[in-house]
Amino acid sequence: MKKTNKSDDVFPSGKMSQSDRKGKLVIAYSGGLDTSYCAVSLSKAGYDVHAVSVNTGGFSDEEIQTIEANAYKMGVSTYKNIDAIASYYDKVIKYLIFGNVLKNNTYPLSVSAERIIQAIEIIEYAKSIDAEYIAHGSTGAGNDQVRFDMIFQTLAPHIKIITPIRDGSLSRQQEIDYLKENGIEASWEKAKYSVNKGLWGTSVGGEETLTSEKPLPESAYPSQLKRTEDEKVTLTFLKGELVAVNGVENASDVNIEVLNNLASAYAIGRDIHVGDTIVGIKGRVGFEAAAALVIIKAHHLLEKHTLTKWQLQHKDYMSNFYGMHLHEGQYLDPVMRDMEAFLQSSQDKVSGDVFVTLKPYYFTVDGISSKHDLMNAKFGSYGEENKGWTAEEAKGFIKIVGNQNKIYQQVNS
Amino acid sequence: MKKTNKSDDVFPSGKMSQSDRKGKLVIAYSGGLDTSYCAVSLSKAGYDVHAVSVNTGGFSDEEIQTIEANAYKMGVSTYKNIDAIASYYDKVIKYLIFGNVLKNNTYPLSVSAERIIQAIEIIEYAKSIDAEYIAHGSTGAGNDQVRFDMIFQTLAPHIKIITPIRDGSLSRQQEIDYLKENGIEASWEKAKYSVNKGLWGTSVGGEETLTSEKPLPESAYPSQLKRTEDEKVTLTFLKGELVAVNGVENASDVNIEVLNNLASAYAIGRDIHVGDTIVGIKGRVGFEAAAALVIIKAHHLLEKHTLTKWQLQHKDYMSNFYGMHLHEGQYLDPVMRDMEAFLQSSQDKVSGDVFVTLKPYYFTVDGISSKHDLMNAKFGSYGEENKGWTAEEAKGFIKIVGNQNKIYQQVNS
Amino acid sequence: MKKTNKSDDVFPSGKMSQSDRKGKLVIAYSGGLDTSYCAVSLSKAGYDVHAVSVNTGGFSDEEIQTIEANAYKMGVSTYKNIDAIASYYDKVIKYLIFGNVLKNNTYPLSVSAERIIQAIEIIEYAKSIDAEYIAHGSTGAGNDQVRFDMIFQTLAPHIKIITPIRDGSLSRQQEIDYLKENGIEASWEKAKYSVNKGLWGTSVGGEETLTSEKPLPESAYPSQLKRTEDEKVTLTFLKGELVAVNGVENASDVNIEVLNNLASAYAIGRDIHVGDTIVGIKGRVGFEAAAALVIIKAHHLLEKHTLTKWQLQHKDYMSNFYGMHLHEGQYLDPVMRDMEAFLQSSQDKVSGDVFVTLKPYYFTVDGISSKHDLMNAKFGSYGEENKGWTAEEAKGFIKIVGNQNKIYQQVNS
Amino acid sequence: MKKTNKSDDVFPSGKMSQSDRKGKLVIAYSGGLDTSYCAVSLSKAGYDVHAVSVNTGGFSDEEIQTIEANAYKMGVSTYKNIDAIASYYDKVIKYLIFGNVLKNNTYPLSVSAERIIQAIEIIEYAKSIDAEYIAHGSTGAGNDQVRFDMIFQTLAPHIKIITPIRDGSLSRQQEIDYLKENGIEASWEKAKYSVNKGLWGTSVGGEETLTSEKPLPESAYPSQLKRTEDEKVTLTFLKGELVAVNGVENASDVNIEVLNNLASAYAIGRDIHVGDTIVGIKGRVGFEAAAALVIIKAHHLLEKHTLTKWQLQHKDYMSNFYGMHLHEGQYLDPVMRDMEAFLQSSQDKVSGDVFVTLKPYYFTVDGISSKHDLMNAKFGSYGEENKGWTAEEAKGFIKIVGNQNKIYQQVNS
Repeated sequence: MKKTNKSDDVFPSGKMSQSDRKGKLVIAYSGGLDTSYCAVSLSKAGYDVHAVSVNTGGFSDEEIQTIEANAYKMGVSTYKNIDAIASYYDKVIKYLIFGNVLKNNTYPLSVSAERIIQAIEIIEYAKSIDAEYIAHGSTGAGNDQVRFDMIFQTLAPHIKIITPIRDGSLSRQQEIDYLKENGIEASWEKAKYSVNKGLWGTSVGGEETLTSEKPLPESAYPSQLKRTEDEKVTLTFLKGELVAVNGVENASDVNIEVLNNLASAYAIGRDIHVGDTIVGIKGRVGFEAAAALVIIKAHHLLEKHTLTKWQLQHKDYMSNFYGMHLHEGQYLDPVMRDMEAFLQSSQDKVSGDVFVTLKPYYFTVDGISSKHDLMNAKFGSYGEENKGWTAEEAKGFIKIVGNQNKIYQQVNS
Repeated sequence: MKKTNKSDDVFPSGKMSQSDRKGKLVIAYSGGLDTSYCAVSLSKAGYDVHAVSVNTGGFSDEEIQTIEANAYKMGVSTYKNIDAIASYYDKVIKYLIFGNVLKNNTYPLSVSAERIIQAIEIIEYAKSIDAEYIAHGSTGAGNDQVRFDMIFQTLAPHIKIITPIRDGSLSRQQEIDYLKENGIEASWEKAKYSVNKGLWGTSVGGEETLTSEKPLPESAYPSQLKRTEDEKVTLTFLKGELVAVNGVENASDVNIEVLNNLASAYAIGRDIHVGDTIVGIKGRVGFEAAAALVIIKAHHLLEKHTLTKWQLQHKDYMSNFYGMHLHEGQYLDPVMRDMEAFLQSSQDKVSGDVFVTLKPYYFTVDGISSKHDLMNAKFGSYGEENKGWTAEEAKGFIKIVGNQNKIYQQVNS
Repeated sequence: MKKTNKSDDVFPSGKMSQSDRKGKLVIAYSGGLDTSYCAVSLSKAGYDVHAVSVNTGGFSDEEIQTIEANAYKMGVSTYKNIDAIASYYDKVIKYLIFGNVLKNNTYPLSVSAERIIQAIEIIEYAKSIDAEYIAHGSTGAGNDQVRFDMIFQTLAPHIKIITPIRDGSLSRQQEIDYLKENGIEASWEKAKYSVNKGLWGTSVGGEETLTSEKPLPESAYPSQLKRTEDEKVTLTFLKGELVAVNGVENASDVNIEVLNNLASAYAIGRDIHVGDTIVGIKGRVGFEAAAALVIIKAHHLLEKHTLTKWQLQHKDYMSNFYGMHLHEGQYLDPVMRDMEAFLQSSQDKVSGDVFVTLKPYYFTVDGISSKHDLMNAKFGSYGEENKGWTAEEAKGFIKIVGNQNKIYQQVNS
Repeated sequence: MKKTNKSDDVFPSGKMSQSDRKGKLVIAYSGGLDTSYCAVSLSKAGYDVHAVSVNTGGFSDEEIQTIEANAYKMGVSTYKNIDAIASYYDKVIKYLIFGNVLKNNTYPLSVSAERIIQAIEIIEYAKSIDAEYIAHGSTGAGNDQVRFDMIFQTLAPHIKIITPIRDGSLSRQQEIDYLKENGIEASWEKAKYSVNKGLWGTSVGGEETLTSEKPLPESAYPSQLKRTEDEKVTLTFLKGELVAVNGVENASDVNIEVLNNLASAYAIGRDIHVGDTIVGIKGRVGFEAAAALVIIKAHHLLEKHTLTKWQLQHKDYMSNFYGMHLHEGQYLDPVMRDMEAFLQSSQDKVSGDVFVTLKPYYFTVDGISSKHDLMNAKFGSYGEENKGWTAEEAKGFIKIVGNQNKIYQQVNS
C-alpha cells in the first residue's frame, strides 16, 4: 500500500486560521495508539473532536477514568463512555446463544459481535450531537473497517467517515513519533500480545497467530489457571436466556459475567479461531471465552432435550448463516431480523436447569432438568423395552419408511 | 406392548419332524444374550441357522474365537466372522471425516455408522449362501431394528426377516430361563453398563443414561486415564484421509486404531449424546471416541486453512444432513451418493500435517502445515499492515458491499 | 392387502342391545361414498354418530344443505358444517403465500393444506362435544390418513380413531352393496374424474394421472375457458397479504375467491403435480389453482423488488422445507411456528401493487409499484451509467471480492 | 462518477514514437460501440491490439465475418472468433440443467453464464499469445465488469486489465464523436432495445426495463409468434443431458438450438427478470429463452419421477446457491466444482423421454416415460387401493411417525 498524499487536506502542517475550523467530529476512541494518534491529529487539523468509547464489557471503572483523562490530553472537546453491555446482550449475544453460534464450530464471534454494537452506539451518538464527521482508527487490512464503515454509512449517510490510519498507511513508529512531536509522552511500546476484552470473550493476537502452525503459549491468555478442584455449576435458562447461575437470579448480562469469573479460573474456553475475513484473506486469532463456551454448550444440551428434531435441524442452517452475516458486518440486513424472529420463536420451551462441572482446562455438561424435556420415560426409553407401540406397529413403520429406497432399488437394479 | 402369541409358529415346543425343517437362515450374531437366545430358539424351531458376526473394529481375535465356540454351542450350522473394518472405513467413516460429522455437534455416530455396514455385510452374505431367512436380535424400541430391516428389505426383498426378541417382547429373564432350559449355562447377568465397541467409537449405556440429569461415572468408560504427561501427535492428511500418524504411514483404518490407542490413554473424546431416535423418542447414550474426536477436529482445522469460505459454508449443510440420513438408516438413498460426491470433491486440497497435543481428558489442535494453506502472509496478514490493496480500494469495496443495506435503509426510513 | 377380520367388532351384523351402545363418535363427513358408508355402518354398529364437514372453500350453500339432508339419511344424530375458510387462510394459506410455496416448483399444496385445517377443526369439535371416537374415510394407501391420524392423535390422544374403509380394505362395490342393503339408494357411480375443490385450488385425478405419460384432457378441469380477451388486474399487497383486487379492498380470503373467479375464466393455473407421498410412493395429480398461481407469482415479484438478496435466498430454504413439512402432515411440529415467525417478519415491507395480465391459458406479471421498491434509479440503474460510485471504487470492490479465488488459484497452481 | 484524468496515459493525444509502443493487448471485442471505441483508442494509444470475440451461440457466420471486417477497420492487428458453444454447454449449461436453475425462480441466467465462458476463453487466449494487457468495454455500473475482472485476475494475475469506458465514464456521444474524429463512420444510433443473444437465451433491455412497473412490448422480443397450431415434442434425456429432440440424436448444444428454433416460433419462454446485481442494486431485464425454459421444466419433471424425495430436496439447496454464485462471477471458486460433483451424481438415473406440447405463448409438459420411473403401479398407486402394505402397517407407521409431535404436545400442554 503506497503512501498517498490524499490525507494532506486532513492534516494541515501549518497553523490554523478561523476558517480552518472544520466542524463537529466524533471519534471511536479506545485510548490505544491508533485512536490517540487520530484524536491528536484531527484536533490539530481543526476538527471539534468528541471522543467516545463504548463499553461492551471490557472496561473497568478505573480504566474508563484513565481513558477519559488521557482523551482530554489528546485535545478532544468532550469524552463520553457509553455503557452498552445491556444493549450488546439484547441486540446480539442473546441470538448468538439462541443459535449456539460458533463460527467454524469454534469461535463465539466475540469481537465481531462487539464491533457491531460499538458502531451502532457511536453513530447514534454522532447523530444525537449533530456531528458532521465520524472517525475510527482501523487499518485498511481487516474486518473492523468494514463493520464500522458499513454501519456508519447505512445509519447516517450524511456523516463523512474519516480514517487517518487507513488513509495514511501509517506505521506504529510514525504514529509514536507524531505523538511525541505533539507533546504526548506515553509508553506506546507494543504489548507482546494484543488483547481485546469484552462480555462475550477476549481475543488474543501475537506472533504465533500470524503463523499457521504455532499455538499461543499458555501465558498469552489473560486468565491463568487459578483453581484445580472441580466445581459444579447450575445454569438456569428461561426461554433460552440465562436467568440464574447456581440459583442466583440476575439480568442475563450479569449472569454471563458471574459465570465468566467462575469459569475463567479454570482456564476454560480457550482456542484459536481460523476463519475468512470479509476482505477474502484467512485470519487466525486466539481467544478465551469461558462463559460463552460454557453457556453455548449448556444451552445446546437443553435444546437437545426440549426441541424437536426439525427445530434442531433447521436451527443449524439459521445459525450458520446468522453467524456468517454477523461476522461480515451485515447486521443491518433485514434478513437478520427475520432470523432473529425464527430463533426467538424456537426458544419458547428452552427452559430448565443445566448441570455443568468446571475442571482445569475443560468442562463437562452433565445433564439437564426441564419440565419441557421430551426425553421422558413414559413415552418409551431408548434401548429399553418399549411401552408406546407394538412390534407389529414398529414393523409397519419400518416397512413404509423404507418404501422409497426399496422401490428405487427394485426399479434400478 | 402386549404379549402376542404370533411367535408361536416360530418356536414350536415339541419335537421336530422332517417337515418342520425350515430352510437356511442367517443370523446377525454377537454372542450376547439376545442373539444367543435367537440362535438357540431358531435352531430348535427347525431353521438351518448360520451365524455371522461382522467385525467393525470391536473384536479381538480372542473374542472372535470365543464367539465362534459359543455359537456352535447354540446349535448353529456354521459360524462366520466377516472382517469389515476396511469396508466400514471406505463406505462410511471416510465421509464422516470429510464432513466433520458430529450429530448434534457432539456424537461421531459411532454406532449408527456401524449398524449400516453390519447390515450390508450380513445381507450380502445371506444372499451369497441363498438364505431364505435373516434374523436379528433387536427389540422394537430403538434405532437398530430400523437400520437392519430397511437395509435387508432394500437389498434382498425376497429374504424374510425374523426378529424373535421384538416379536416376543421378551424380557432378559425369559431369555435366560429359556437358554437354561436348553442347556446353555453362561453368566448372563447384565453388565452394569452396556458397551458397544467399534472402530469409530464405543457407546456406553447405563442407568444414568436413562435419566436426563446424570452423567456417567468415570468408571463406566472403557478406557481409563493412563497417561498424564502431554504428548504431541502429528496427523498427516492426504485429500482428507488420515494417511500417517507421527509420520508413520498406514492404511487409514489402521491409523485410526493407532491414534485411538494413543489418545484413549488420556481419557479423551468422552461425552453424552442426546438425540432423536428414528422412532421419534429422545435417547441418551454415553460414548468414548478418542480417535474420532481428535481426527474430526484436526481435519476441520486443516479445512479452515485450505477450503474457501463457501466450501466451508456449504459443507456444513451437506454434513448436517448426511449425518441425519445416516443416523436414520437412509444410507441406501441415492442422495447419499450425491452427497459423497460433493464431499469427495471438496477434499481435493485437504492435505497437510495437523499438530495435536494430547492431555489428560482433553486435547488441543495446535496448528497445521500445508502447501495448500490459503492463510499465507504474502497475500496479506489479518490485523497487520496490508500489502494486497490500498486504502482507496478497501473503501471502494466497503462502499459497494454495503450498497444494498444502505438503499434499504434509505428507501424504508 | 388381505382382508382381516379385525373390524368384526366394529360392525356387528346382528341387532343391538342397550349394551351395544358405544358412545359419541364424530365422523369427518363429505357426503361421498366412503364417508356415507362409514356413517351408516358406524350408526348401525351402535355409535352415536355426529357428522361434521369442514368447508375450506369447496362448498356452496346449496351443496351444504344437500350434504346435511343426506347425512341424516345415513342415520347420524347431528350434522354440522364448520366454515373454516378464514381459519384456513390465517393458519396456512397466508404462510404459503409468504413463502411462495410451490411443491416441486409446481403445486400450491391445495389439498395438503386443506386436510390439515379439516383435521384440526374436526378434532376440536370432537373435543368440544366430548366424543370418545373419531372416524374418517381414508384408505390405507395415501397421504390423508397420515394427516388425519397424526393431528387427531396429537391434539386428542384420548379419542380413539376408527377408519372402516382402511381397516376393511373395502372396494367401492362392497360399499355400494352395503349401502343398498341398508336402504341407501343413491347414484354412486364413480365420476370419471375425482375432484377436490377448495379455496387454494382444485385437484383432479383420473385414469390419466395413474400413468406417468398422459396429461389430463382439457375437459377434465372444472373451469373451462370462458374469456379470450386480455384483462389487466391489479393486486394490492400489504405486508405480504392480498388486501385488494383491482382496488376493491376485502378480507384476503375473499380476495382469493374474487381473483379465482376472474382468473379461472382464462383456464389459468393448471398443471400436473408429481410428488412423493408420505408413504414413500410417487403420486401424480392434476390441479387447477388459478388464484393461487397468480397470487404466488405476483407476490414473488413484489418480493424481488422489496426484499434484500439474503432475504430472498434464505426464504427459499425456509419455504422449501415449510412446504415439505406441511405436505407431510407435520403442521403441529413447533418448527412450523418458528418458520412462520421468520416468514411473517420477512413480509414487513412487502407492500404495493402488482400488475397482472390474464390471457387465455396463461398470465403475465407485468410490474409493480411500491414505496419500498429497492430498484430505484436514484441509487444507480442496472446497465446504465452509474452515479453511486466511481470506476476506482468499483475496481477496489472487485479486487477485494475476488481475493479468495485469486489466492486459491495462486496457492494451488 | 467524476471524470478523472487517470486515463491520460492510456490515450495520448499526440503522435506516437517508437518508445510509445506498449505491447500486446487482447480486447474482448463484440463490434458494438463500446468495444469499437476501445479498439480504436487503444490502437491509437500504441497497444498492439488483438481483438477476440467469443461465440456462445449468438453469432451467425455472416455476423462473424462482418465483425471481423469491422475489427480491422478499428486498427486491430488480428481478429479471432472463438467458437465456445460446446465449451459453454460442457462447463456451465449442463449444470444449469442438472440443477433446474432459474434465478429467483424465473431467469435461466442466460447472460451471467455467457460472460463466465467468454471471460475464460478470452483470458486463455491472451495467455496463449503472451499478451501483457487485456481490455473489456464494460462500464463501472454493472455485473459484467465484476465477472470479467475476477476471472481475468484469477486466471492471469500478471496481465493488466484496461477498461477505457469504465475509467473514462464516457457517454455514448463522446464515444461516437471520438470514432468519427478517427474516421470510423458507422450508424451507431442506439437501438431501442439492447439485445444480447446466446445459446441459453436472449436478454432484452429497454426503457421499460428501467422502470419497475412496465412490461416490455411484444415487439421488443426478438422472436415473434410464427406458429399457432399446437406441436408435440419429445425430449430424450440421458443422465440429465438432452440427447435427442423428437428422436433425432445430436450433441446436446445442437439439440438446444434445434429446440430453440422449434419453440421460439411459439413466442415461448419470455419473462422479465428482477434481481440483485453483484454491486448491490436491483436490476430488471427482459429475456426470451424458449429452449432453456422448456428444457428445464421437462428435465425437472423427469427428475420428479426418477429421483428420491431427498435428492429433490437437497438439489434445491444446491441449485439455488449454484445459481447465486455463478451469477456473481464466483465460477472459479472450488465450491462450484464440489456442487457440480453433487449435481452430476444426482443425474445417474435421469434418463427417459419427456413429452411437451408447444402452444402460442406457453407450453405444457405432459408426461414422461422412463425405465427409472419410481412411480410404478406395482408398488402402489396414489389414491387407489394399495397392495404394498396393510391397514395395520399403515397405522403402525403413522403412530410412530407422529411420536415426536405427540410427545411434544403432551409434555407442553
